[in-house]
Amino acid sequence: MSLPMRMSELSERSGVAVPTLKYYLREGLLPAGESLGATRADYSDEHLRRVRLVRALIDAGVSVAEAKRVTEALDDPPRSRHDLLGRAQYALPAPHADTPVSEEVMALLAGLGWAVTPDSPALHSLSGAIAAARSAGVPLPPEALRGYAEATEGVAAVDVANVPTDDLASALHRVVAGTVLVDPVLAALRRLAQEHMSSQR
Amino acid sequence: MSLPMRMSELSERSGVAVPTLKYYLREGLLPAGESLGATRADYSDEHLRRVRLVRALIDAGVSVAEAKRVTEALDDPPRSRHDLLGRAQYALPAPHADTPVSEEVMALLAGLGWAVTPDSPALHSLSGAIAAARSAGVPLPPEALRGYAEATEGVAAVDVANVPTDDLASALHRVVAGTVLVDPVLAALRRLAQEHMSSQR
Repeated sequence: MSLPMRMSELSERSGVAVPTLKYYLREGLLPAGESLGATRADYSDEHLRRVRLVRALIDAGVSVAEAKRVTEALDDPPRSRHDLLGRAQYALPAPHADTPVSEEVMALLAGLGWAVTPDSPALHSLSGAIAAARSAGVPLPPEALRGYAEATEGVAAVDVANVPTDDLASALHRVVAGTVLVDPVLAALRRLAQEHMSSQR
Repeated sequence: MSLPMRMSELSERSGVAVPTLKYYLREGLLPAGESLGATRADYSDEHLRRVRLVRALIDAGVSVAEAKRVTEALDDPPRSRHDLLGRAQYALPAPHADTPVSEEVMALLAGLGWAVTPDSPALHSLSGAIAAARSAGVPLPPEALRGYAEATEGVAAVDVANVPTDDLASALHRVVAGTVLVDPVLAALRRLAQEHMSSQR
């Protein structure tokens, strides 16, 4: 444990400007500090961690409303370690939430033998993302989808191996941050792997 | 080849409202149609394809300025099929363009035996995305990065196998659309694979 800090130090250590920190407080993205009077409060390392996460989410393109849903879920961690990765999904922004789950997606998962709960938000995201890609002229034939799915098993194996063994609140924080913030790492790796593999052909 | 269409039909077939089409024209995201007089023009299937791509890019979170860079690159296709995937990258939005390429990233690629050009924009994106994830408390140890990279080889293998054999302009369109619009498909698959694999542990 380190000593509590004032807002100016929280700003310095996080690299987030004081007016932005005040905005996070007003929007409920950052819990209030321990009050030291009408205009002063102390913040902990927990606050610093939260500020860094919120900043990284917003920089990664997550909206303020979505970031708020994420932080609310972090404030209500699960009571058991079971399926921490699955639980984290319900906290994460899930695009295409209104797209019905397609039969094609259910058939793909059945073919892969993947066991997922039928109300998983990612089923809607996957159905919507496939439809959006196709509407823009990307054909995505079934064998390509299956190939992508098999490759993501390797990604998820790394995710599962890196679920932290910390207390549940910290573990949920890490899993949520890791899911959102590793997506851009994977996107950049994909572009480099494309270049490597197409130069090899 | 199908018959040319008026803007109202372009709107109907693309699902993009007429005022939005006019906005795309003003912003240079959509080339002008063949003029039929002061206030009328004909649009082709090529325009329809472009409208669908621009709409999908913007829906996927690409900014208007970035979409404009993409469409400009599409209007200037490469003269040979060689490394179409690599070429597409210079057209695509590349986050963290100002982040210097880290030694860690160069060592990772050397360890993997990946051959990429030293000015590849994805080298900056990868360096920046790793730094952003770590600043938010995601540790990303070297063995995790390597595991992610090896898994993305499988993704890129599917990408390479699906490079279209159309004319170069169409192929570049498909590769650019496929790179940007398959990222959300992979993100959704990753979440489902996480749930499946963590329920198996």
